[in-house]
Amino acid sequence: MKKILGMLGGMGPGATADAFAKLIANTKASRDQEHIPIIIVSIPDIPDRTESLIYDGPSPLPAMIESLRILESAGVSCIIMPCNTAHYWYEELKKSVSIPFISIIDSACNKIIKENIKSVALLATTATIEAGLYQHKLAENNIKCLIPDDIEQYKIMKSIIAYKAGDFHSAQEIMLSCVSKLEEKGINKFVMGCTEIPLILKNISRQYPEKFIDATDELIKETINWYQFADYSQQQEINEVLISSY
Amino acid sequence: MKKILGMLGGMGPGATADAFAKLIANTKASRDQEHIPIIIVSIPDIPDRTESLIYDGPSPLPAMIESLRILESAGVSCIIMPCNTAHYWYEELKKSVSIPFISIIDSACNKIIKENIKSVALLATTATIEAGLYQHKLAENNIKCLIPDDIEQYKIMKSIIAYKAGDFHSAQEIMLSCVSKLEEKGINKFVMGCTEIPLILKNISRQYPEKFIDATDELIKETINWYQFADYSQQQEINEVLISSY
Repeated sequence: MKKILGMLGGMGPGATADAFAKLIANTKASRDQEHIPIIIVSIPDIPDRTESLIYDGPSPLPAMIESLRILESAGVSCIIMPCNTAHYWYEELKKSVSIPFISIIDSACNKIIKENIKSVALLATTATIEAGLYQHKLAENNIKCLIPDDIEQYKIMKSIIAYKAGDFHSAQEIMLSCVSKLEEKGINKFVMGCTEIPLILKNISRQYPEKFIDATDELIKETINWYQFADYSQQQEINEVLISSY
Repeated sequence: MKKILGMLGGMGPGATADAFAKLIANTKASRDQEHIPIIIVSIPDIPDRTESLIYDGPSPLPAMIESLRILESAGVSCIIMPCNTAHYWYEELKKSVSIPFISIIDSACNKIIKENIKSVALLATTATIEAGLYQHKLAENNIKCLIPDDIEQYKIMKSIIAYKAGDFHSAQEIMLSCVSKLEEKGINKFVMGCTEIPLILKNISRQYPEKFIDATDELIKETINWYQFADYSQQQEINEVLISSY
């Protein structure tokens, strides 16, 4: 049976388009027909993930499950969701489908572990940080995960919100100043742990690729791995040994 | 009922991603939830459109109809297909669904008519040219549609094929030399009538936007129009008056 990838998108649409572009760019193909078949559901009126987790706003889970249903009915064989914060609901979402669901958090953490990195700073939404999505997994692998202070974190959120509102320049300016502040403290490795951040920092992260880990990129590489392996579940078990689950 | 856009993609995947990115960039939205809901089916092992039309290869129609079925079952309310050549089968595809299907050819021709342009050169696949997809509509509106000679057209196809194979630099170099040759003949207006061409010519078309009409861009603007109008069928009738159908 033909493998079809399913992308649960819309969180936000720009990040969904970025993940799609990265899938195409990372696939070795000499013609259209060799690219990975994909169905993308980007129905973005999903309640805001940060609002839900931090300010007790409505849960995005029912809307996310609705998008998953569309993907499953359309016949996809694997799910990816290019939004880090939404992975707070990962276990519940994974349980609701009977096909593989590749985690962006696991993909990025695997990269950090494999590269033997000892300390990283996490650039992410306040909700991703408060939920500890990265910190627990990294701590169990003896990797230090540095968190911006409250003032810097407030600015990071401001930058993400500006990007989502279409204001790339403000978003970039604010985020670059946060990166500079962290660099002054001696940090030289950053996880871009929110799928808008590789878009906001695209110029600097292309200029200094050794400084930045792009969670979207890692998710896509893991996805291409899934597509190429005949038996991905076996491959997943190998990864699960690598990451101690929390 | 919520309007959901359906994109019949995969022809090729890069052009599909470009259309999605242009949809997001052209939508006025201050947050994720204000973006246009979309489902994209990009299952690219559709037989090559040019091969089918010029070299009597297998028809892409059954595979395109299969993607349309997925979109209809998923509940989309309108179809777009960011591939000019595939519009050879537009009438058949349109008949096979009961929802609006916005034509990229009509969208681009409308732009040319509205701007009162008297003469354009068509950069497109050999199949799009041989099928006369643009020429008939433009001729009926007294617009001259200039076609590259056989040698230049051969190079244009070579460029498109190079782009699809991931070789952006060769694709750009070849296409730019064709544009220069046409400019030497006094041509100063080009229709990018193949959805790979705005990607191949992205640098020059951004530098000289007045010289290039991007069919993908026009399709997306028409699509946003569909999304915003309560009664799009009424709006479509207005457009049909504007374009005399051939």
